[in-house]
Amino acid sequence: MASKLIAIVAGVGPGTGASVARKFAATYPVVLLARSPENYEGLAKEINDKGGKAIGISTDISSSDSVKNAVAQIKKEFGDNVGAAAAIFNASGGFLRKPFLELPEDVFRTSLNVSANGGFLFSQATLPLLLKGVEQKSEHPPSLIFTGATASVKSNALMASFATGKWALRALSQSLAREFGPQGIHVSHAIIDGVIDIPRTKEWLKDLGPEAKLSADGIANDYWWLHTQPRTNFTWEIDLRPSVEKW
Amino acid sequence: MASKLIAIVAGVGPGTGASVARKFAATYPVVLLARSPENYEGLAKEINDKGGKAIGISTDISSSDSVKNAVAQIKKEFGDNVGAAAAIFNASGGFLRKPFLELPEDVFRTSLNVSANGGFLFSQATLPLLLKGVEQKSEHPPSLIFTGATASVKSNALMASFATGKWALRALSQSLAREFGPQGIHVSHAIIDGVIDIPRTKEWLKDLGPEAKLSADGIANDYWWLHTQPRTNFTWEIDLRPSVEKW
Amino acid sequence: MASKLIAIVAGVGPGTGASVARKFAATYPVVLLARSPENYEGLAKEINDKGGKAIGISTDISSSDSVKNAVAQIKKEFGDNVGAAAAIFNASGGFLRKPFLELPEDVFRTSLNVSANGGFLFSQATLPLLLKGVEQKSEHPPSLIFTGATASVKSNALMASFATGKWALRALSQSLAREFGPQGIHVSHAIIDGVIDIPRTKEWLKDLGPEAKLSADGIANDYWWLHTQPRTNFTWEIDLRPSVEKW
Amino acid sequence: MASKLIAIVAGVGPGTGASVARKFAATYPVVLLARSPENYEGLAKEINDKGGKAIGISTDISSSDSVKNAVAQIKKEFGDNVGAAAAIFNASGGFLRKPFLELPEDVFRTSLNVSANGGFLFSQATLPLLLKGVEQKSEHPPSLIFTGATASVKSNALMASFATGKWALRALSQSLAREFGPQGIHVSHAIIDGVIDIPRTKEWLKDLGPEAKLSADGIANDYWWLHTQPRTNFTWEIDLRPSVEKW
Repeated sequence: MASKLIAIVAGVGPGTGASVARKFAATYPVVLLARSPENYEGLAKEINDKGGKAIGISTDISSSDSVKNAVAQIKKEFGDNVGAAAAIFNASGGFLRKPFLELPEDVFRTSLNVSANGGFLFSQATLPLLLKGVEQKSEHPPSLIFTGATASVKSNALMASFATGKWALRALSQSLAREFGPQGIHVSHAIIDGVIDIPRTKEWLKDLGPEAKLSADGIANDYWWLHTQPRTNFTWEIDLRPSVEKW
Repeated sequence: MASKLIAIVAGVGPGTGASVARKFAATYPVVLLARSPENYEGLAKEINDKGGKAIGISTDISSSDSVKNAVAQIKKEFGDNVGAAAAIFNASGGFLRKPFLELPEDVFRTSLNVSANGGFLFSQATLPLLLKGVEQKSEHPPSLIFTGATASVKSNALMASFATGKWALRALSQSLAREFGPQGIHVSHAIIDGVIDIPRTKEWLKDLGPEAKLSADGIANDYWWLHTQPRTNFTWEIDLRPSVEKW
Repeated sequence: MASKLIAIVAGVGPGTGASVARKFAATYPVVLLARSPENYEGLAKEINDKGGKAIGISTDISSSDSVKNAVAQIKKEFGDNVGAAAAIFNASGGFLRKPFLELPEDVFRTSLNVSANGGFLFSQATLPLLLKGVEQKSEHPPSLIFTGATASVKSNALMASFATGKWALRALSQSLAREFGPQGIHVSHAIIDGVIDIPRTKEWLKDLGPEAKLSADGIANDYWWLHTQPRTNFTWEIDLRPSVEKW
Repeated sequence: MASKLIAIVAGVGPGTGASVARKFAATYPVVLLARSPENYEGLAKEINDKGGKAIGISTDISSSDSVKNAVAQIKKEFGDNVGAAAAIFNASGGFLRKPFLELPEDVFRTSLNVSANGGFLFSQATLPLLLKGVEQKSEHPPSLIFTGATASVKSNALMASFATGKWALRALSQSLAREFGPQGIHVSHAIIDGVIDIPRTKEWLKDLGPEAKLSADGIANDYWWLHTQPRTNFTWEIDLRPSVEKW
């Protein structure tokens, strides 16, 4: 029964993740995954207060045990047979913009671990739920969406600790799109090419005017658009940037 | 005044062009360009009968004089100061899938001429109207959308007479996106990667089921989605394919 | 008999074309094609004086008749059964870096005509000779090499009149590589990403030191390397840039 | 003094690694890195017997300690001030071509660990030696070359455990090329697109003839060619495939 389908968002913070969660919460109960509860508690309350349904689960997306625990929590809350209409991977590890020979090994490993192994674990955890979404005749094809960046397609000097994970994640999304498209699941990748307008970036690019930064709500609308594409018209990849962005 | 903005579609036939025209006709008066009046007459009547507004103009998009004549007709109909909310280039020259050494020169030249020179002439003709759309405060950023194909990004053996023009058109769209984005015009390119479900392809891929072909109306929805993206969130390129497509 | 095989270079000028011609002239008689005899006369004399063999033919590479005439001249000089070991397309039409709406139509058409239709005509003229090179057991697989540019893979604002032709030419080279590789012909494309050190660019980038510009002789060495790759190890595309280039 | 410069090859086995080692051993003392001594012992003996110089070091390229130990061994053998003329990363982790939901987590992690973290550790270990090669005025610009695959640019269904690491490695190589090119180090990436002719693949593709597989010695020649490019003409990426390969 379609009404039981949920949406799962990994990497909920004050930017894209929160906007995506709000957008999908208008239609589906949403599960919010983030390491730190402070990243989802306020948002879950906001969604629940407005008559939606949201639960947050503290999750280290790069840890197999932690992701397994999240799935167990989801099943406890929504039932063993729960299906998903959407799963959105929005997590990123920290990275350093640094001369390569000064880059600490653990920064490189951690960043790659979140993007690549995190993407792997999230996909293995959510695809069975998305396949149940297909069985349960979701209104829109169940969607698995990955958030990428400029660094997903261009690997600049000093950016190795960010780009390697992002390229790996894009490769994962392309392979999954080819494997699961014929099974009715819509796998997409979004190249976010610019600064997102969030509290942390408030003072950035001010001289370029109010439209020089990406709107997080706009990104959420675009993810929703990807989600509503029918099986005859799947998009794997979109790029998104402000109109004034140099690229 | 936004109500005066028009949409212009080049390359109207029984497939994508007609669907796009119908979609945009729900909001804007539409101008239908095609070489042969039989490609737009029925569609124009259909749109006008349903309370929309459509005019057709017989146009050879690769001919400078013919495109100038089309612009003159548009101004005669909608006024010298008419602005455009959208211009969609959907034209393609004929091509032959043939061993390269058997490819007639005129086939190669004509195909390239429609895609590349046609794209150039259409862009030079419509961008001034789209810039007026910006001045006239169109609700959505005025959009210039180019229809591409698998052959826009992959140039297979025997496909030189198609791919050269399609790659040139994609290059044109990328350069224009970079130049006119900061001026408020949203330039996009769509890679249509699969067979479109039109009368001519009715018998194709039947064994793969009803969802093995792209829906032309679906493509039109996607173009409308591109059109409604705000200036903070422009997409240059999308790919579109049926979920079962091998790619 | 391998000794009869020739090399043909289109677009001979003071830069890459001349260096390539000199390099291949050490092994093969060379045919130099350029519109203006002043572009090849000195070079032909230089090669002939040093004991090589070179002929120049005034050719408009975008004109079918002119290219047919060049082939007739080649056969008159080297015999009807002449085979080719290498054919190198190094021609470019003029272009203008200009706001798109100020770009004269004839500049756009001419640039595209040289790159795309010129590439087509040159390929149709030389591939039969290269196939004879295969029959005549050339020491190295007969090679068809196209000179590209940064603009072959990136289409910047204001560069539409250059990039469209370069993308079309790259598409042509990829399609030909796929069709003619199995027939024993090695088709390659070189992305020249930087300023070439020629008399005209003498004053450019001086503050970056003597190694900030590409060496034309170096490019010729790289083309020769492509030419000597065996059938088991064909490269379609290389990029070439100075070590200090930003990319 | 140039004569002291060494070449280091990681991932020595019966294919590309061995051919590359032999090729570079004609000019430089070579260091052979592989997990299992049986992968380098015969080769080291062969090179030493022929009058070259080779040492093998058992190394787990994905382990920081193991790579540090290898560097210590190198310095013990060649002196603390040893410079390198070339470092070639040819290692790959095992992977499984499997439906994604059947892919064991440790296979995914291990494959990624060898390609991405291994590439990182190898680069951090060898770049200081390559920079010494620059100081010590190596005849050719010191080279850091990464071996890629078809899966470096295309991520097919069922290939996620291979492609993610290969895309990450390509990203690493591109970032390093941009950072270290201006410092005089030539960083390259080779896309090996086809089956390599080694004992294990002897029976593969036999019906396509003797030229249907890549020659490992040919790859080694191409790496040597990359190594000898001057600072004015650096290639970042080459693709390599048999002439009959479908691509």
